[in-house]
Amino acid sequence: MTGRFISLEGGEGVGKSTQARLFAAALRERGVEVVETREPGGSPGAEAIRALLLQGEAERWTARTEALLFAAARADHVARTIRPALAADKWVVCDRFLDSSLAYQGGADGLGEDLIRALHAIGSEGFLPDRTLLLALPEAVAMEREAIRDAGRPDRFGARDPEYHRKVTATFRRLADAEPARWRIIDASGEADMVTPRLVESVSEWL
Amino acid sequence: MTGRFISLEGGEGVGKSTQARLFAAALRERGVEVVETREPGGSPGAEAIRALLLQGEAERWTARTEALLFAAARADHVARTIRPALAADKWVVCDRFLDSSLAYQGGADGLGEDLIRALHAIGSEGFLPDRTLLLALPEAVAMEREAIRDAGRPDRFGARDPEYHRKVTATFRRLADAEPARWRIIDASGEADMVTPRLVESVSEWL
Repeated sequence: MTGRFISLEGGEGVGKSTQARLFAAALRERGVEVVETREPGGSPGAEAIRALLLQGEAERWTARTEALLFAAARADHVARTIRPALAADKWVVCDRFLDSSLAYQGGADGLGEDLIRALHAIGSEGFLPDRTLLLALPEAVAMEREAIRDAGRPDRFGARDPEYHRKVTATFRRLADAEPARWRIIDASGEADMVTPRLVESVSEWL
Repeated sequence: MTGRFISLEGGEGVGKSTQARLFAAALRERGVEVVETREPGGSPGAEAIRALLLQGEAERWTARTEALLFAAARADHVARTIRPALAADKWVVCDRFLDSSLAYQGGADGLGEDLIRALHAIGSEGFLPDRTLLLALPEAVAMEREAIRDAGRPDRFGARDPEYHRKVTATFRRLADAEPARWRIIDASGEADMVTPRLVESVSEWL
């Protein structure tokens, strides 16, 4: 099987969605068949769960309920979209995956990483990306980008306070340090089309 | 705290929903303040998850995704409805609870009881009813009742085959045998108003 599963991670405003699109396009230029997807969502069932997760008040769900819903959406996404694409020798570029649950629900919400990993073991048999790219920016730059992008339309996560987002970023850094074979830290500063080649370089061994 | 949490369990067609209503009414006649609820559902968030669980094709969700969604709905139901009612000294009569997940997803779907209990530990800290009443009928009677009731409107669970429903019933029996302090087996045969006094009798120590 030559399919590769690559996730993009990082806090709000680092440019994950834009880079997922540009990165997939750059891979296609090199002849790779790519499935672009995202979490929460990425399959019809998981998109229905996504709507429950992103709509409503910040307190709509307890942290534990939310963690279960994310794990349910991920289980559907893995079973219905990611595994079939890899089995067909395609590459999968995914905007957020398990590590976002570790950083948000596990780290910032205080549930702990063990609980999130236990849910992932139950839902998706612990399935992990071949590579995870952490898009990293100085905090002030990320917050400014996020403020511009989300003016007037914060969802349940973007709306949380700066301390929450600092915890998210710190957890991502720690996860990347703990598992260097899977993670690469990507400098996300500068114009979008300057960043994309850094992502391509981080998977060059497979191209 | 004098609140009591009582769940009603059993396969399709044994009369759980009818008895939940009649049992709650009989308790109220004795001066008990009762909250009637049901699973999946029982709180606004859990009812939204219920819609995802009951609609669509039988294969809409994998067994693992389904187990996570039930656990998410249950976590919301416990946090938003059941615990607050008990804290206010009310009794809670619930049509299905954890044991239905053990019987359907754990037993009949083959996920195993350990996995279902692990999810309940994560979502709801292992919270259990004070008493669980298993409504029991001879199989042929239950299937006939179910066929009459559900003619033309089977949901994703009622639509499954007789072997599936036999596994469900067998798991309920085994759970009841394993934990006799919590469970009572109730003869659900006969007219509905003959059955209700048997439920009341099973909690008479608290009345």
